[in-house]
Amino acid sequence: MPSSKALSRIDIVRSSQVIEMNEHPVDAIRKKKDASIVVAFDLVKQGRANAVVSAGNSGATLAAGMRKLGRLKGVARPGIASTFPTLKKPVVLMDIGANVDCKPLHLFQFGVMASAYSCIHGIKNPTIGLLSNGEESGKGNALVKETHQLLADSSLNFIGNVEGRDVYQGNVDVIICDGFVGNVCLKISEGLADAAMQMLRDEIMKSTLAKIGYLLARPAFKAFKKRVDYTEYGGAPLLGINGTGIVSHGKSNARAIKNAILEAINMERHHVGQAILEGLALEEQNSGGCSS
Amino acid sequence: MPSSKALSRIDIVRSSQVIEMNEHPVDAIRKKKDASIVVAFDLVKQGRANAVVSAGNSGATLAAGMRKLGRLKGVARPGIASTFPTLKKPVVLMDIGANVDCKPLHLFQFGVMASAYSCIHGIKNPTIGLLSNGEESGKGNALVKETHQLLADSSLNFIGNVEGRDVYQGNVDVIICDGFVGNVCLKISEGLADAAMQMLRDEIMKSTLAKIGYLLARPAFKAFKKRVDYTEYGGAPLLGINGTGIVSHGKSNARAIKNAILEAINMERHHVGQAILEGLALEEQNSGGCSS
Repeated sequence: MPSSKALSRIDIVRSSQVIEMNEHPVDAIRKKKDASIVVAFDLVKQGRANAVVSAGNSGATLAAGMRKLGRLKGVARPGIASTFPTLKKPVVLMDIGANVDCKPLHLFQFGVMASAYSCIHGIKNPTIGLLSNGEESGKGNALVKETHQLLADSSLNFIGNVEGRDVYQGNVDVIICDGFVGNVCLKISEGLADAAMQMLRDEIMKSTLAKIGYLLARPAFKAFKKRVDYTEYGGAPLLGINGTGIVSHGKSNARAIKNAILEAINMERHHVGQAILEGLALEEQNSGGCSS
Repeated sequence: MPSSKALSRIDIVRSSQVIEMNEHPVDAIRKKKDASIVVAFDLVKQGRANAVVSAGNSGATLAAGMRKLGRLKGVARPGIASTFPTLKKPVVLMDIGANVDCKPLHLFQFGVMASAYSCIHGIKNPTIGLLSNGEESGKGNALVKETHQLLADSSLNFIGNVEGRDVYQGNVDVIICDGFVGNVCLKISEGLADAAMQMLRDEIMKSTLAKIGYLLARPAFKAFKKRVDYTEYGGAPLLGINGTGIVSHGKSNARAIKNAILEAINMERHHVGQAILEGLALEEQNSGGCSS
């Protein structure tokens, strides 16, 4: 239980409606004007709050943020980024599901926005990779090939195409993809991690010696789990809206919510919105006004 | 070493050229007419061989197969399927990289072809899922939404959209996606499995007790590795060409090649090409001739 001192710093604002996970985001926020996620972004709009953290319907969170706070000037499509644990430093992947049909400009701007965002982790001039089916610049679907050219012509620190197997290597700071592909990446990773742990557990349970071995090695397993634990990563930032919002995993525990709140504070302190505006202005200037 | 009896059953046909992994498939097979992969498919065309197995450039293997043997009647785009180990039964994913820009008809036909192929594993009327960013039928990018309708109207055993996290659950026999997404799925899975094992190994190496525990549990780890080992799965079949071809992993060892050859024999014995033709004819008939 929080102390009374801690409670004295919390204001509770009532809301009467709930947006369910399976509701269509835009329809839901239009119909349910008193849903907690709509009310929360209204508080930011009124200046009564600085940021929103939500573990609910992520599409509705983004839609409510866009409706109440609007987009940052010059942003074609706000999106959702996510930080992945890797063998080396964490990597920021964008978009992870907000925009399933993208144009090259959208992916290019994800690069600008995720680059500005990853600065809050102390990374200066982050390296950016474009997710493709091969490293060569000619590889990719039509969207990726066109985006490649935009990124190559920009002032971003673009290192070229990266492949699926590069995501967990940690050799790049930011990876760009459309929201359909990003969502599949996120969910196949969760699914594979769960399935692999389950298969390993099944094999260990078949032998007493293996069970004893597992008990001895358990601290190592725990350390491993902590290293890949999503609750350490504080949720996924909405990038491109005119304010700070974080989407947390639907299964978030108290620790995950705490880290999401800390992440929101960190984003506010680092003026991520301002950094995105500056990044977009720089690209606009470089391209002679042709990039948006 | 193989016995002289085994060697007496092997004919070696010379070829003077090699297609490198980074060459453009179609250009390469046009220029290098004496590359081993071109020669191999020529042997099938001449009736001197029944099938081709290659661990080389997979795009060039498909391109050579298409050039020498042609497509099966009615197939718009041949593709490459792959079998994934899961918590339950294996799942066939198609396409894993041959077609990065697809139309709904292509994905629909991947469903017909992968369905016909998965019958060789003894599965009758396999269930088919469409990879998307949500299970609801309204979820997906434009390509997936249109494909959903084609699959729903077909006589295939279509169970609707599946998500990335369903791939390793083993609750569906066949999963359909475009080759860009399929390639990312395959490679992110390989990358995550490698990274996770590496991280776990790092943690185990930090403590003597954990090392002893790992030694005791090693048979369980080995059994787990065998369960997810790609070399057990005999390579990825080319589906839609007028003949049998298998693409093996570039890192294939002897065991993987052996299993790929056994898979090719299995495909020939089960007349997979004929099953694909029958599947396409059935869909053509059901749609009144509108599906191709």
